[in-house]
Amino acid sequence: MGDYFLGIDLGGTNVVTTLLDNSGQMVARDGFATHVDQGPKPLVKRMVASCNKLIEEKSINRSDVKALGIGSPGPLSVVEGKIINAPNLHGFANFPLRAECSGKLGVPAVLDNDANVACWGEFWLGAGKDVTDMVMFTLGTGIGGGIVCQSELVHGSEDNGAELGHTIIVPDGRLCGCGQKGCLEAYASATHTAKRAEEALAEGRKSSLQQLFKDNGSVSCKDVFDHAKAGDPLAIEIVDGTAKAIAQASINMRHITEPQVVVLTGGMIKAGDILTKKVRRFFDEMIWTLKKESLEIRLATLGGDAGCIGAAGLALHAYEKGDLPAVGA
Amino acid sequence: MGDYFLGIDLGGTNVVTTLLDNSGQMVARDGFATHVDQGPKPLVKRMVASCNKLIEEKSINRSDVKALGIGSPGPLSVVEGKIINAPNLHGFANFPLRAECSGKLGVPAVLDNDANVACWGEFWLGAGKDVTDMVMFTLGTGIGGGIVCQSELVHGSEDNGAELGHTIIVPDGRLCGCGQKGCLEAYASATHTAKRAEEALAEGRKSSLQQLFKDNGSVSCKDVFDHAKAGDPLAIEIVDGTAKAIAQASINMRHITEPQVVVLTGGMIKAGDILTKKVRRFFDEMIWTLKKESLEIRLATLGGDAGCIGAAGLALHAYEKGDLPAVGA
Repeated sequence: MGDYFLGIDLGGTNVVTTLLDNSGQMVARDGFATHVDQGPKPLVKRMVASCNKLIEEKSINRSDVKALGIGSPGPLSVVEGKIINAPNLHGFANFPLRAECSGKLGVPAVLDNDANVACWGEFWLGAGKDVTDMVMFTLGTGIGGGIVCQSELVHGSEDNGAELGHTIIVPDGRLCGCGQKGCLEAYASATHTAKRAEEALAEGRKSSLQQLFKDNGSVSCKDVFDHAKAGDPLAIEIVDGTAKAIAQASINMRHITEPQVVVLTGGMIKAGDILTKKVRRFFDEMIWTLKKESLEIRLATLGGDAGCIGAAGLALHAYEKGDLPAVGA
Repeated sequence: MGDYFLGIDLGGTNVVTTLLDNSGQMVARDGFATHVDQGPKPLVKRMVASCNKLIEEKSINRSDVKALGIGSPGPLSVVEGKIINAPNLHGFANFPLRAECSGKLGVPAVLDNDANVACWGEFWLGAGKDVTDMVMFTLGTGIGGGIVCQSELVHGSEDNGAELGHTIIVPDGRLCGCGQKGCLEAYASATHTAKRAEEALAEGRKSSLQQLFKDNGSVSCKDVFDHAKAGDPLAIEIVDGTAKAIAQASINMRHITEPQVVVLTGGMIKAGDILTKKVRRFFDEMIWTLKKESLEIRLATLGGDAGCIGAAGLALHAYEKGDLPAVGA
C-alpha cells in the first residue's frame, strides 16, 4: 500500500501532527496545545498518542509507517536528536526528544529545528518545489532562516547555521536583541519594522499613522504596511527600508550559496505582493552588473503547515538516503 | 604501489602541475608560462606534456594515475567541465578544458575554479585540515571566496557561489568594480585598502605615509601595513577598517554556514599576525552574546601551491566518491 511518514511540528504554544504518503499527500492531521509547563514526558505521551490516532483513524498498516520527523524550537542537536536549551521549551534542556518519541512509537525518527523543517516543507512541496537551491527568510517577531544547497539542508558545523536574521547588514547599525549591531533582524523583522515607524512618529514626522500612534502609543507592522498601501509617504519609506534590507540579504545569499529562489514566509507576508515587488525592485537596483542574476523572490505557499509537512518530508528524505537512526536512538 | 593524482593550477600568467600520492605527499612538480595569447589548444598540449613529464620522471605506472584535477579562472561550468567566459583567459570561451585534457592524458578529470581548488587544498592539507566546515577569503587585487560545508565545496546552483568578496557589508557604501555599492571587496581588498589610505592622504590627513604619497602619487597595501606596524595612527585606522570588514563578513558566514575556521590567504597575508589578530579582535567585539562562538581565524599554510594541491585533492575526492566523469568527457 506504499510508505507513510509522520511529521510533528512542536511549537511553544501548539503542536501539529500529520501523516503523509510518500508523494507528500496529507492523509491525516491533528493538533493540540503544547502545555510546556507540564514538562517533556507528558508532552511526548500526547505527541505519540496523536500520531497513533492518525495511523489508526486511517487504518494504516503500522509496518507501512517508515519514519517520523520532528521540528522543534532550538537550539538543538540534529546529530544527537536532543533539545539543547530552547528558550521556548523551558525545562526541556538536554531532553532526548528524538529517542523518546521514536522508542514509544516504534518508528525511526529525525529531529531538526523549526526553521529548517518549514524550509524543507517549502522546498519539497511549496514555493521551492521546482529548484535545487533555495533560501528562506521567516519574517516575524524575529527573522529565522533556512538554506537548501544542492537539495540538502545546510545545518552548519554545530547545527546553528542558517541564522540569516543575524547577519550584519549595517556596520554599527541598530541594536539587535542578540547583542549585535546592524543585524538584518534589527531592520526587517515585523517588530523592528513597527519600531522604526514608531521612532519616526515619535520624532513628529508627518504621517497618516500619527493618529493611531497618538491613540495607542504604538503601531503594528500590519498598520505600517496598510498605510503604505494607502499611499502614506512615511509608511512607504519604512516598508522600503524593510524591503531594501531583505534585498541586501538576498543579494548576499545569491553570492554565497547561489539559490535560484528566495522564499519569504512568516506573519509579514500577509502583506502580500507589495513585499515581493519591493524586494525584487531593490534586488535589481543593487545587484552587480557583471552578469544577469535570475534569482526569483516568492512568497511561501504552505502557510502554517510548512513545519509538519517538512518534518514528515525530512523523515522521508532520510529514509530514502538510508540515513535513519535506529528505533529509540 | 598505491594511487596517484595529477593537479593543474592554470593561472593567467603561470601554470603549475603536480603529482601527489593518495596521502597528499607531493611526488613531483612542474611549472611554465601560460601564454594565453597562443590560444587553448597549444596550452592543453603543454599542460598534458608537463603532466606526462611528471609521471615519466618518477617512473610511475600509468595505470596507477587515477585522476586529474584542474583549477582555472572562472566563470566556468563544473558540471560540463567548460570555461564559460573568463576575463583572464581571453579566447577560451566555451572551451571544453576538462574533456581536452582528460582525453589527451587518458585519465578522468574534474574542473573547478581557482578559488575553489585553493580552498580545497587548504581544507585537505593546510589551515583547515582538522575541520569539517571552513570559509576562505583570498585577499588580493580583489577578494575571492571558498566555502566547505560538511566536507564538500559549495558551488551554488550555477557554479558561481562563494563570491564572498561581493557580499554587501555597507548599504550604499563604496563603489565596487562589480557595479555594486558596499561590497566587502570595496573595503578589504589590497587594492581598496591602498585606495582608502590614498583618499585620506589626499585629504591631507597627517601620516608617516604622506612623504611616500607625495613622492609616488600612490601607496601600496604593503606600505599601509608596514606603517601601521610602525605605529602610524592613520595607517592603523586604515588597517583596522580592512580587519573590521573581514570580521563582519566572518560573523555573517558563521551565522550562515557556521564554519569552525576562517582561513585568510592572498598577497595581503604577507602582513602576518597583525591581520589575524585584528580580525579576531573585531570578531569578538561585534559577534552576538547569545552564545560563545568558537570560530578560529587562521592564515593559509600552503602558499602558492594550494591551487595545484587542491586540484589534485579534488580529483582524489571525486575518485573516492565514485563521481569521476568518463575519460575524455
